Amino acid sequence: MQDRAAKTRRQLIRSAAELFDRGGFAGSSIGQICALARVSQGALHFHFGNKQALGEAVESTAAEILLCVTGQVPAQHPEPLQLLVDTSHTLAEWVTCDPVLRAGFGLAHDASWHSGVSLWQHWRDWVRGLLALARRQGGLAPGVDLDDAVSAITAVMAGLEGLERDPARAWSARSVTPFWRLVLPQLAAEAARGGIDVAGSPSSATGEPSSERWRFDDGSAPHECAAMPDAQLCCMPYEDHREMSGSAS
Amino acid sequence: MQDRAAKTRRQLIRSAAELFDRGGFAGSSIGQICALARVSQGALHFHFGNKQALGEAVESTAAEILLCVTGQVPAQHPEPLQLLVDTSHTLAEWVTCDPVLRAGFGLAHDASWHSGVSLWQHWRDWVRGLLALARRQGGLAPGVDLDDAVSAITAVMAGLEGLERDPARAWSARSVTPFWRLVLPQLAAEAARGGIDVAGSPSSATGEPSSERWRFDDGSAPHECAAMPDAQLCCMPYEDHREMSGSAS
Repeated sequence: MQDRAAKTRRQLIRSAAELFDRGGFAGSSIGQICALARVSQGALHFHFGNKQALGEAVESTAAEILLCVTGQVPAQHPEPLQLLVDTSHTLAEWVTCDPVLRAGFGLAHDASWHSGVSLWQHWRDWVRGLLALARRQGGLAPGVDLDDAVSAITAVMAGLEGLERDPARAWSARSVTPFWRLVLPQLAAEAARGGIDVAGSPSSATGEPSSERWRFDDGSAPHECAAMPDAQLCCMPYEDHREMSGSAS
Repeated sequence: MQDRAAKTRRQLIRSAAELFDRGGFAGSSIGQICALARVSQGALHFHFGNKQALGEAVESTAAEILLCVTGQVPAQHPEPLQLLVDTSHTLAEWVTCDPVLRAGFGLAHDASWHSGVSLWQHWRDWVRGLLALARRQGGLAPGVDLDDAVSAITAVMAGLEGLERDPARAWSARSVTPFWRLVLPQLAAEAARGGIDVAGSPSSATGEPSSERWRFDDGSAPHECAAMPDAQLCCMPYEDHREMSGSAS
């Protein structure tokens, strides 16, 4: 029964995220959200009280998913800059395919939504931690200013996320590879430079979303994602999500 | 009388832009827009027909302002990369302070707004033209891929614009300087590298908005901006805009 309640809660969060993404927070009604989730309005009010609380749940779930994508900054890592490149690719991919993560970022652009949550703050802190690790391990070029690098890397990722919504996104910078190709020769210490794959290392999650990394419900996954145990389904098209939402209540 | 009609039109566009920016397209009513502009609803319907048409006018005015910021790609320029850096600073500044330009970019993020207009498409084409000019004039490093550079420069500018809306924007990358500091050593030909001021050259518009460049109603300005003849006022705080909107109808 608790499982069922948790599933209903997740369905509501996912349906709200899909609708916020398509019509904005103000443009999505409780009725539409319940219809998409195939859940009664009573159930929505039981779980979330009101639309504002549901919006906050979408945002905090997105924050948890983002934490799943980045993981914590490790105390040691054989190739911190490669981890940074790989994770930026994973994030770019997830923003494209995960409606809850995309809605979480989208709410920050939504003038009808107001909260103090910033997903980019987490990203920024994570990038700073990883660059500091790279510096401690001698992987960063000597002249690099950490603030500069953190700012540029945050701005470019925020730009890729924003351009996903652009009417002309077909042409847009849909990959972070061009940025890394330009920036890494400047960022990485000479010894580390040649070994970094700017397109993401083959072991990272970029490309096939069916890799172990995406299986958050699987004990072998690198990070557990309690927020969305069915997050390995994130690359299914919307139609499938709707079917999934509808098939169980 | 025609002047007065043009002024009313501009007041409606500016007021709509301010409200779209604060509450989104769906969250801004015709009544609110008219109240802020101190214009009757009849006048709004006379000039624009409906809110959708007013939204389209905000978007096309923003596109004209963006064209004023960039100008056309020159056939020749003594320092194309410095012009690129300077213009990126001007754009970042205008996005912060001009409500119509900001609303134009904001509508692209607004899930309640649908149009085929992409301001970033213009920026991208302009950057490509300028980099091609730099290459022709020997100012670009030999290995630079034009597509990579255009993608990265577009993404970082879109990110700076998006982060302006972020709840934690106090920390955000509010300047394009860190990006240029990282990227220019890679982008510029060795001979050109030392001469480029990544913070924007003193003659550019960054900093003091009272420079000639901002005086679009002045014949000596580098580009005329027919869209917003009072655009030199863009750095006035909102309160002053409101006063201005109110003082003349």
